[in-house]
Amino acid sequence: MSEILGSWIDGVPGTMVPFDDRGLQYGDGLFETMLVRNGRVRFLDSHLDRLEDGCERLGIPLVVDTSLRVEVLRTAAVAPDRAVLKLIVTRGSGPRGYAPRGQFRPRRVMTLSAASPLAVTAEGASLRIARQTASENPALAGLKHLNRLENVLACQEPQHEACFDALLLDRAGQVVGGTMTNLFICRGGTMVTPRVDRAGVAGVMRGIVLRECGTLGLPVEVRPIAAAELALADEAFVTNARIGVVPVRNVGEHVFRMNEIGARLAAHIETLDA
Amino acid sequence: MSEILGSWIDGVPGTMVPFDDRGLQYGDGLFETMLVRNGRVRFLDSHLDRLEDGCERLGIPLVVDTSLRVEVLRTAAVAPDRAVLKLIVTRGSGPRGYAPRGQFRPRRVMTLSAASPLAVTAEGASLRIARQTASENPALAGLKHLNRLENVLACQEPQHEACFDALLLDRAGQVVGGTMTNLFICRGGTMVTPRVDRAGVAGVMRGIVLRECGTLGLPVEVRPIAAAELALADEAFVTNARIGVVPVRNVGEHVFRMNEIGARLAAHIETLDA
Repeated sequence: MSEILGSWIDGVPGTMVPFDDRGLQYGDGLFETMLVRNGRVRFLDSHLDRLEDGCERLGIPLVVDTSLRVEVLRTAAVAPDRAVLKLIVTRGSGPRGYAPRGQFRPRRVMTLSAASPLAVTAEGASLRIARQTASENPALAGLKHLNRLENVLACQEPQHEACFDALLLDRAGQVVGGTMTNLFICRGGTMVTPRVDRAGVAGVMRGIVLRECGTLGLPVEVRPIAAAELALADEAFVTNARIGVVPVRNVGEHVFRMNEIGARLAAHIETLDA
Repeated sequence: MSEILGSWIDGVPGTMVPFDDRGLQYGDGLFETMLVRNGRVRFLDSHLDRLEDGCERLGIPLVVDTSLRVEVLRTAAVAPDRAVLKLIVTRGSGPRGYAPRGQFRPRRVMTLSAASPLAVTAEGASLRIARQTASENPALAGLKHLNRLENVLACQEPQHEACFDALLLDRAGQVVGGTMTNLFICRGGTMVTPRVDRAGVAGVMRGIVLRECGTLGLPVEVRPIAAAELALADEAFVTNARIGVVPVRNVGEHVFRMNEIGARLAAHIETLDA
């Protein structure tokens, strides 16, 4: 329940979006959720790269240029010590019909919110397996697009109040990720995180963790994780741009016995500049 | 490219929606596209029933009552002879986060457009098979929800200008339906249309056709249709609330040899009251 500190439509302070925006009509757009720390956006390049890639895949003619970067940086500069900057980019307004006919002017909807403290104890986050499954679509996989009903439904399931996030499985029973996080597990010193080429989101923090594993010489694999494999893992952690790296205490009944690598990565990434 | 004749937000003339509407943020909502003929909404009960069912499945606390019905009817009464009335219902505005926490006040976004003539020749509609596949999710299947990126991507594929709609297949190669239509095929006098319990939309006109097949004593089956079965069909037609029943001339290279039952159903449904 984050307090909204400001909102901007196409760079201008405002709160209203036209009804014919294709983001509303069809979920035709993308978003980035960025952490602002001491007036700076963490991993801004990674966020803008993913946004540009997503726009290219969806055919949204957004120009990710200096002016967009400056718009984000200026907003971050007036933010409190820790804040969340959410940037939605839609294809823009257009006539009725799925086919995006004619020229479009993508719309930017930016929101700055206070970063509320994480509801995670020192023992780590408590996760559950969602009943809701993640559907598979290679054309949309990896994108942080606006079609998020599966996540909404997963979050609506009854759950213990201490539950931090729910893990979605695909139809084959393989872990896709949390509704708002990517999952890593550790087995015998090797970290594993699911592929995101059939479902799931290619989280910016997931990318940072993969990169920093290389830097730190920590072995990591990107491959499918069957739900049954969770109980074989020594430890697990979840990631996203806002929370960084958060050790997982348990998934359902299974309590992980360590959280060393997750804690080490969390501390390391916290020290990275930006 | 339909001319917009008017728009209403929560029943009040207007064009703007708050940025924190969950329809925009997450595609958290549903819509109905209704045909207005001579000031009356065709099959309004079916549309409102589906909307109510969809809201129940998504946990959106919309009350489909007399006042909503009156709102729709009043708008239709001022419409031209043939118009399209689109009603979006979102979960409403809320704080950031997929989980719909707290009380929500669903938002209604209603648009009235001129019904432009159909781009279909006397021979029937030309269809193609989309490269884009339809993902499967029983929790969302059948719903006319706002997560429509698959349809958008299918419509963006290069196509002949005479192409009326693209058929989406699931991963198993079975027909789900058109991006904006439901498909029926006829084999040996029996009509067949795909199930909509794993993917696709339970179109209002699909429901009317199934009902009227019963009335007319026409045999009809609801079962999977493999893409390869299309070439075995004698005829085919597509349906939606706006177009009614439209015979299909061809799917890709395959030209159907008849359009008798489709033409008969089209004429019959056109005569139905409302």
